[in-house]
Amino acid sequence: MNQMFAKRTATVHRSFIREILKVTSNPDMISFAGGLPNPRCFPVNEVAAAAAKVMSTSGVEALQYSTTEGYPPLREYIADRYQKRFGFKVDPENILITNGSQQGLDLLGKVFIDEGDRILLERPAYLGAIQAFSIYEPSFRTIPLEEDGPDIAAFQKSIADERIKLFYLVANFQNPSGITCSKQKRIELAKTITDSYTFLIEDDPYGELRYAGEDIPSIRKFTDQQIILLGTFSKIVSPGMRLGWVCAPREVIEKLITMKQGSDLHSNYITQRILFQFLQDNSLDQHIEKIKAAYKTQGEAMVRALEEYCPTEVKFTRPEGGMFIWMTLPEKISSLTLFDLALKENVAFVPGNAFYVDGGGSNTLRLNYSNSDEIKIEEGIKRLVKTIKELMVRE
Amino acid sequence: MNQMFAKRTATVHRSFIREILKVTSNPDMISFAGGLPNPRCFPVNEVAAAAAKVMSTSGVEALQYSTTEGYPPLREYIADRYQKRFGFKVDPENILITNGSQQGLDLLGKVFIDEGDRILLERPAYLGAIQAFSIYEPSFRTIPLEEDGPDIAAFQKSIADERIKLFYLVANFQNPSGITCSKQKRIELAKTITDSYTFLIEDDPYGELRYAGEDIPSIRKFTDQQIILLGTFSKIVSPGMRLGWVCAPREVIEKLITMKQGSDLHSNYITQRILFQFLQDNSLDQHIEKIKAAYKTQGEAMVRALEEYCPTEVKFTRPEGGMFIWMTLPEKISSLTLFDLALKENVAFVPGNAFYVDGGGSNTLRLNYSNSDEIKIEEGIKRLVKTIKELMVRE
Repeated sequence: MNQMFAKRTATVHRSFIREILKVTSNPDMISFAGGLPNPRCFPVNEVAAAAAKVMSTSGVEALQYSTTEGYPPLREYIADRYQKRFGFKVDPENILITNGSQQGLDLLGKVFIDEGDRILLERPAYLGAIQAFSIYEPSFRTIPLEEDGPDIAAFQKSIADERIKLFYLVANFQNPSGITCSKQKRIELAKTITDSYTFLIEDDPYGELRYAGEDIPSIRKFTDQQIILLGTFSKIVSPGMRLGWVCAPREVIEKLITMKQGSDLHSNYITQRILFQFLQDNSLDQHIEKIKAAYKTQGEAMVRALEEYCPTEVKFTRPEGGMFIWMTLPEKISSLTLFDLALKENVAFVPGNAFYVDGGGSNTLRLNYSNSDEIKIEEGIKRLVKTIKELMVRE
Repeated sequence: MNQMFAKRTATVHRSFIREILKVTSNPDMISFAGGLPNPRCFPVNEVAAAAAKVMSTSGVEALQYSTTEGYPPLREYIADRYQKRFGFKVDPENILITNGSQQGLDLLGKVFIDEGDRILLERPAYLGAIQAFSIYEPSFRTIPLEEDGPDIAAFQKSIADERIKLFYLVANFQNPSGITCSKQKRIELAKTITDSYTFLIEDDPYGELRYAGEDIPSIRKFTDQQIILLGTFSKIVSPGMRLGWVCAPREVIEKLITMKQGSDLHSNYITQRILFQFLQDNSLDQHIEKIKAAYKTQGEAMVRALEEYCPTEVKFTRPEGGMFIWMTLPEKISSLTLFDLALKENVAFVPGNAFYVDGGGSNTLRLNYSNSDEIKIEEGIKRLVKTIKELMVRE
């Protein structure tokens, strides 16, 4: 049957992460593999109340077909929040509601990517973006991700040397690395893309989850040219709702709308209404404070455990927000080998190689802390480091 | 900026139908243009109760990420319903939950269509399929749609002469024509595709909405080879939920899952839970009886008005279910010209040319009856026929 399938099916791979989730259903397993928000932070009662209100006041409307663009008051809320967070003006017409920011990536692929087009990623890069863009058969290029964000000289060289259509980055608490791009680098990125051929896509699922240090504005604060923003309610309200957005120039939004019509007509409307009702009746800021408090506890517990147990040859990032820590093992240690051994010790993580489109990263791995409590975090890191030490002795 | 966009953006067109919806928001307008279910049939109270139950019993789970495949009990429900409706066995593993059947089309495009691949459609064909497949830049072929379904000789010739990857059809109360494929033709289609290279995609949004005549089994009843089924809850529960499915061989489902991961991770989970709860606590069959009773009244009212007012030169279909009637004007009359004149008389429809990928159909149009009451249907048809007669005199 393989002859029937489109050739892209040979290059788009099933996410290793989602496959790991199946392995880790064992209750004795301590999993740092997923990227699940802490479910204890979900606003269950508030969403229940919002759902009841929507169904009693606008039930008929909520069950009917709706517009591709998304529920207008929700688009307005998102536009206003940019103004409030960063002080730049966004028109609701520049917002398209999507099924999580993942669909934003798919639609951007549809609108921008012809086979062979050059797409620039950070090294390592968010796996979901690699998967989404791969469907449109681009040619990936990468630049190093340094401790304070992408290597600017490499970025400038890349877009000067080649026609790079899109540069995709996660500027805050990047998935997988936890790294945040500095303000200085954001200014330089903004300067470089303005008047260039390249569109910069700034994906920001975790930006509101800063629990240490100071907020840094979106790159969009420093230029309104050649920039597209992706956002999501997955990490600040609920991922099960699958509601995110693209914020882009109107000409791009028009093309995205046409592609979304063909892709699924519009996003789940009843949930758009419920989410908006929740946002009307509750303070999102107060809700986010609760999430940040939890992630601060969890993130700091993981850093503490790593500092206590890790040998000095093992390096790890110390994020100021978000959900992930990135670990770099001594060069000869393969995180894939470690993965198999660690599973036997009932601890799981994501081997880093999946986040590299051009090889490398075999001695890196991603750790998630948002979905384990302090006790499991300490125990899990103990088990993990024990396994790492065993491997180091072998080498 | 146009140089930036992928070349597919030049061939994928915004749906004229969705654009018409904007024109028809005028309250004096009688619109037969849309394809909206009758909102008076929505189970608002029952969905409200289901939502409350889900949030109180499984709220945390419903708000979390879930599996790409979809909520297992919902997949099981769908599989069981095939058994119940047609007596053939489907495993829940063969069901993938999608954002309406429209996303099923997009995912099938991703999995099967390389640029230039030959896709066969009925003439006329469902516009959403044309849009979804166009994204993957196929080469469309068409076969005539006759009063009792696709022209079988043309179908056999087409798949014998060329490597046709996919043949897409709506066998029951087709959108746009209202035509139903006869049992004999289904048997012949099944025979022809079995052991062929071609996959037949049977889309069935309206099959449960038969209000006259006798049910005809799915083509899948006559072969389990080379066939993929699409289904949706949009017309039998709620389109705002955006929940449909693909039923396909496991090897195809595997590829679809990979593509869906990259496209939006999974369908809205909270709504999957609410829909399943609704299906558990209510009889879907009884609910469908209510919809059928309403559509029978509305459909018969439109046929009656057409019979009463139309000159004999104007032909129209007499559907036994679904939501649409197809009208064929005398050859020289353009339904696009009619559209402009009819709008001035405050009546709207969809000109037929949009449903033809290879030209033609300029004297055809689609009428929807599910979203207007009997009084509006009669008045709207009066206005429409008056305009048609004016145009006929001019010619």
